[in-house]
Amino acid sequence: MTATPSDKSLQTLACAVGERLLARGQCIATAESCTGGLIVKLLTDIAGSSAWFERGLVTYSNDAKHELLGVPAETLQRAGAVSAETVQEMVQGLLKAAPVQWAVAVSGIAGPGGGSADKPVGTVWIGWGGTDAAVSVSRFLFDGDRDAVRRLSAEAALRGLEGLLQAGQ
Amino acid sequence: MTATPSDKSLQTLACAVGERLLARGQCIATAESCTGGLIVKLLTDIAGSSAWFERGLVTYSNDAKHELLGVPAETLQRAGAVSAETVQEMVQGLLKAAPVQWAVAVSGIAGPGGGSADKPVGTVWIGWGGTDAAVSVSRFLFDGDRDAVRRLSAEAALRGLEGLLQAGQ
Repeated sequence: MTATPSDKSLQTLACAVGERLLARGQCIATAESCTGGLIVKLLTDIAGSSAWFERGLVTYSNDAKHELLGVPAETLQRAGAVSAETVQEMVQGLLKAAPVQWAVAVSGIAGPGGGSADKPVGTVWIGWGGTDAAVSVSRFLFDGDRDAVRRLSAEAALRGLEGLLQAGQ
Repeated sequence: MTATPSDKSLQTLACAVGERLLARGQCIATAESCTGGLIVKLLTDIAGSSAWFERGLVTYSNDAKHELLGVPAETLQRAGAVSAETVQEMVQGLLKAAPVQWAVAVSGIAGPGGGSADKPVGTVWIGWGGTDAAVSVSRFLFDGDRDAVRRLSAEAALRGLEGLLQAGQ
């Protein structure tokens, strides 16, 4: 079982992402479902984040995913909100809508309700992409309660971003 | 100087808002600027919040306020992003776009940068409205650092909501 990241370690990770974006003169936008704003909160906790953070969408309902990010209703119905297809569409929709170079999207089941046999609580899909970088998606299965799943999801999303921003230099 | 609210007191307030919405069978959406997702995070920290929370927009840039909430560019230029007019438009735009009965919007200067003589750091406008309730807006001037201003703003926004939901019963 992975340790639940502390406030401090999440803050450190968010700062690292912000510093890389600032150094590159680039901006990011976020689209969150199960993390419910934790990622955008961590990024905008940082003073001066308006230089590199553009917008954050918490698309909790399927309507919001469709209307704000252009995820097709057909994808949401066929693959579900927690799927590779949906987070890929979320990233692509965000990159299309927002004047940013980078985007990250998260959709998962934080629990305690909402789990099923094939998508148990803790199942989280994360997608990352950039205007000059293909979208990549990963599936995670996190242990722990709602708070732990949300924190582990935010950590994985930020860590992936940090890697992308490092690799793309 | 007002005491900075603790995590616990903000959580208690968010739970009270959620319980009232659940009891009424109604939904809410949020639009945040300076609080950067703190309010949506507090609301979606609550298990089962998808029953009464629909979407949360962190419209950090002026582009996002215009594109996602329909705040006219003219309003943003004339009155500024931190103004009565802008938060009123944010609430109205949210109520128009999202299938919800209630909306809250926050725009302010959390600092440490961004303050001016007539809008010092700590200046925060909050707007509340509902499909059956007129939009009301209030101006606050909070003391403290970035974290304190964000927490005090979230507290004021949630307290105002709780009052509205109580009054409207």
